[in-house]
Amino acid sequence: MAESKLKDIKSPGALRSMTMSQLQELCQEIRRELIDVVSANGGHLASNLGVVELTVALHRVFSSPRDSFVFDVGHQAYVHKLLTGRAEVFSTLRTEGGISGFPKPAESPHDSFIEGHCGAALSAAIGLARAKQLKGDMSKVVVVLGDGSFTNGMTYEAVNNIDHSLKNLIVVLNDNSMSISKSVGSVARYLFRLRTNSGYSKLKTAVEGALNSVPLVGKPLTRCLAAAKSLARRAIYDGVLFEELGFRYVGPVDGHDLPELVGLFSELNKSSGPMLVHVITSKGKGFQLAEENPGAYHGVGSFDIEKGNPDIAESDCFSNVFGRLLASLADRDGSICAITAAMKYGTGLNFFAHSHRERFFDVGIAEEHAVTFAAGLSKGGMRPVLSVYSTFLQRSFDQLYHDILLNRADLLLAVDRAGLVGSDGETHQGLMDVAMLTAIGGFTVVSPCNYGELRFWTEKLMQTRGQRAIRYPRGAEDPELAAFQPSGNPTDLIPRPGASALLVTYGRELAQVLRAARELDGQGISCDVMKLNVIWPLREEDITAALGYKLVFFAEEGVRSGGIGEHFVSRLYQQGYSGLCGIAAAGSAAVPQSELEPAMRFCGIDSSSIAERVREIAEQKNKA
Amino acid sequence: MAESKLKDIKSPGALRSMTMSQLQELCQEIRRELIDVVSANGGHLASNLGVVELTVALHRVFSSPRDSFVFDVGHQAYVHKLLTGRAEVFSTLRTEGGISGFPKPAESPHDSFIEGHCGAALSAAIGLARAKQLKGDMSKVVVVLGDGSFTNGMTYEAVNNIDHSLKNLIVVLNDNSMSISKSVGSVARYLFRLRTNSGYSKLKTAVEGALNSVPLVGKPLTRCLAAAKSLARRAIYDGVLFEELGFRYVGPVDGHDLPELVGLFSELNKSSGPMLVHVITSKGKGFQLAEENPGAYHGVGSFDIEKGNPDIAESDCFSNVFGRLLASLADRDGSICAITAAMKYGTGLNFFAHSHRERFFDVGIAEEHAVTFAAGLSKGGMRPVLSVYSTFLQRSFDQLYHDILLNRADLLLAVDRAGLVGSDGETHQGLMDVAMLTAIGGFTVVSPCNYGELRFWTEKLMQTRGQRAIRYPRGAEDPELAAFQPSGNPTDLIPRPGASALLVTYGRELAQVLRAARELDGQGISCDVMKLNVIWPLREEDITAALGYKLVFFAEEGVRSGGIGEHFVSRLYQQGYSGLCGIAAAGSAAVPQSELEPAMRFCGIDSSSIAERVREIAEQKNKA
Repeated sequence: MAESKLKDIKSPGALRSMTMSQLQELCQEIRRELIDVVSANGGHLASNLGVVELTVALHRVFSSPRDSFVFDVGHQAYVHKLLTGRAEVFSTLRTEGGISGFPKPAESPHDSFIEGHCGAALSAAIGLARAKQLKGDMSKVVVVLGDGSFTNGMTYEAVNNIDHSLKNLIVVLNDNSMSISKSVGSVARYLFRLRTNSGYSKLKTAVEGALNSVPLVGKPLTRCLAAAKSLARRAIYDGVLFEELGFRYVGPVDGHDLPELVGLFSELNKSSGPMLVHVITSKGKGFQLAEENPGAYHGVGSFDIEKGNPDIAESDCFSNVFGRLLASLADRDGSICAITAAMKYGTGLNFFAHSHRERFFDVGIAEEHAVTFAAGLSKGGMRPVLSVYSTFLQRSFDQLYHDILLNRADLLLAVDRAGLVGSDGETHQGLMDVAMLTAIGGFTVVSPCNYGELRFWTEKLMQTRGQRAIRYPRGAEDPELAAFQPSGNPTDLIPRPGASALLVTYGRELAQVLRAARELDGQGISCDVMKLNVIWPLREEDITAALGYKLVFFAEEGVRSGGIGEHFVSRLYQQGYSGLCGIAAAGSAAVPQSELEPAMRFCGIDSSSIAERVREIAEQKNKA
Repeated sequence: MAESKLKDIKSPGALRSMTMSQLQELCQEIRRELIDVVSANGGHLASNLGVVELTVALHRVFSSPRDSFVFDVGHQAYVHKLLTGRAEVFSTLRTEGGISGFPKPAESPHDSFIEGHCGAALSAAIGLARAKQLKGDMSKVVVVLGDGSFTNGMTYEAVNNIDHSLKNLIVVLNDNSMSISKSVGSVARYLFRLRTNSGYSKLKTAVEGALNSVPLVGKPLTRCLAAAKSLARRAIYDGVLFEELGFRYVGPVDGHDLPELVGLFSELNKSSGPMLVHVITSKGKGFQLAEENPGAYHGVGSFDIEKGNPDIAESDCFSNVFGRLLASLADRDGSICAITAAMKYGTGLNFFAHSHRERFFDVGIAEEHAVTFAAGLSKGGMRPVLSVYSTFLQRSFDQLYHDILLNRADLLLAVDRAGLVGSDGETHQGLMDVAMLTAIGGFTVVSPCNYGELRFWTEKLMQTRGQRAIRYPRGAEDPELAAFQPSGNPTDLIPRPGASALLVTYGRELAQVLRAARELDGQGISCDVMKLNVIWPLREEDITAALGYKLVFFAEEGVRSGGIGEHFVSRLYQQGYSGLCGIAAAGSAAVPQSELEPAMRFCGIDSSSIAERVREIAEQKNKA
């Protein structure tokens, strides 16, 4: 095989002239490229190793971009990217200005939608398929769903909108029996039965043989038995669930058998009707370390190919600090329950799951259910804690209001990955949770800046009832902030002699603000720093304290609209403040992928941007 | 029958000592009471008439509040309310300070949860059932779902979290083949087959007979045929879909046959395991007008019992004005598609559906899917318009960001029932859409104050692309505001000679603000009124214009946190404003049921409250 086969593929049409053995060699080259790039840049490895043959087969048969490809979720689209003209730049994966870790229409006409949140793709694909029909476009829509998609309610809302007329829709169920850690729930059990139950297979063979050999005597009996045979066959063979839901079901098929896949898709491409193809794949296929531990290689940082993924033994992070503490609190309080939406490890709740199995609930990728389920647990006398990434909490806006707040349910919401998340980019930024929670109201929101504060406030909040949220960033604590001892006060003031300006902030952003204060001090602007620990509701005394300054500047790692800054500033002026003010916050949650510092610069919330803005405001004043 | 039988029932335990014929008489009395009260107060009639026997049977068998009752959605809980100590006060239904139109724990220990949004109840019920198990409580959780619940994704997320261990959960599927107008989708079709297919029933009988009479000879054949029999039986008899999803399925049963229901529930009360009981009911049962037209009697205003529901021939309202216009725009533009989430009539899209059937999509009670489906239509070259009630848009927060904004999809979002909604109360207030849309960003948001402006701006927005929202209130235009001709400007100024204060507002709230301005004028405070038509993004020139006033007061019919007022005021001060300011807005969306004017007073956004606040601020200034 030529070294450059993969890089020579400028468009998926090139696959059509390749022999099966060339395609199989290509698959191996793709695997090497995936391992090389992901080990260097971090990303989603195991899921992409699992779909190499599947994606090659799809692009061999269907004609992208005429036929549209949609992925749920998009982190399994790396192979698709390699085959659609992006092999040469694939080494920039997930870096600033580089290739996104998710499909992105701005990047290529082969990407139909940005897809970072699970469950959305089938709805989008149905919309696209309907639009094609309305326009008389005869091309297909191929949507690849993970089995995790079937733990999410959106997928069912979409399925419920499928009927026979959607002849141009092909749904590929990439079933690796994992959503992110391990699929949960009745649909996962159903898929497991379809997939693996050898008794089921044996029964199928035996019954088929028996039914074929039944001597049929007498007309009515013939008719009835024929009906029984057909029903029995359906009940055994087919994905009854999917057939009942309106699909033509095909499968299960081996997702690593390239010739079989190519043959099957070629057949399907000629037929019509909404089809569901059930493909069995192995996550991590072809990379032994990942095959053995696919969960650990789901989403990884960079790692050494020989030694493996260092994240497995990762040192502390906010998630683990939270998870360990909650497990220990639950040792002493039998009413504490922990809930995750398919992020047992990501949220650190694995510690809780290990020691309190019966009070741990992984509900699947089902953030809506997670919140309302918590409301039910609370009404039944338990004390639910839901840990969820900020970006996925966006799925639960209505439930937080309607099921938690209106029901006055007891909930500790642990908002993980709150703030900027780095190389996952705009689909995963955690910049809107504060705006959501303050619009909903009722919640007490705490934002610790380091592990010590996370521990202190989690314990403190667990001593109270009601609607409480604690939000903390992705990854490890800032080395400078690690030194702060939790004061236990809702607000801390970090004074500087002769300060005439006040910088207000919360959470991890404190590091930027402290740096800005030092910079400004050297330029003759002395600033006190107000560090909000309890960020919502705002306290009258903090507003009052701010009234005494000539300049108040609020910096936050979240969207500006609905953020604490706007609340703080508007309250300040309604109290009669007559000084100067400014706010630094993200203009929108759509912050592109990059390391943390460049992302902060992008939002204008890094220390230099803050210092510059404060200087500008102070100078305006001097001019006036 | 004693006249007072119903009012004598202080708790559902009273049903236990009644004979079957007394219970049947009670059902008739309940129907009369429902018709009397709903015809006077408005409310949900047809669905409650349909569940009379079902609810009586449930309360006869299960012991509320030890056994918990949960309803999805709660508007079918009137009979439950009548049987649980609220018959005497039922005439206050949906009035200020009276009985809520939805279950409400604050009202009675027999109500487990507030339930106004479809799809949430099963999640809540599972949480409650798990909590009971963890506490060793042996009582049951009975949850009544409508067939519409199965068009909503949350229900599936919940179903996916049901397993054999949930022995205390009984799900009653109240299948009236309507969600609100008519259930759509593959699950509805499935239920329809289960329910009505006579061929199906005949086959069932025939096959059963045949299978029982097959002579079984030879051991392997016996075993195989037995297996085939059991499989065939399952495929025929049972709700395979539900069985595959983990339930024991029972039904379908006649929901108006009281003795059968009582017998069945008594059996189920003795057995265990998560059960789904499929009950067939007729919406509107026992009231001819409602039986004939259940859609028109779903949610009604007050009406004359003899003459029927006047809403059927209702005069104009914002929804119908919008719906008629959109249908006519679609006559001229073949790419316009209209989407509703089960509110074809409520949103006025029935006009569109009538004339453009192939471009009209009722997706069921599936607001998440609705938004992402629109993104798909847009990417396929169509021009989607989604009309949805503000309160239900809360279900789509993430999709508006992730699928519409990030994908730069074209969408006109028609936000109906934006603002206060009256007697539906806190579950249905439309007070958070503005906070949501401004946090998400990207959307141009327009808020017309009357029909003319709604028409003008809808046409105007349909001439543009991108993310656009137009929001308008429930019901009819304000008579005073009807006179305003659309200026076509993003902002209008209504000046008053010598004004030193500026009142800023948008939408229907303008009526209150104009009244306040007149009142203040009489008290020596002359106010200009700034009427925002395009309310987001804020325009620099409007902020600049406001800088010239000594006092700026913003009034809005929405939550304060994240509302336009806070944005406006904080921008104003960052521009160097040094005058006085104030904001009148709702403290929270949890505004209790009442007529519009009292609800506005509750929020402090009625004309008197505004005038009083402005006076206070002005006086403070004079003192200082």
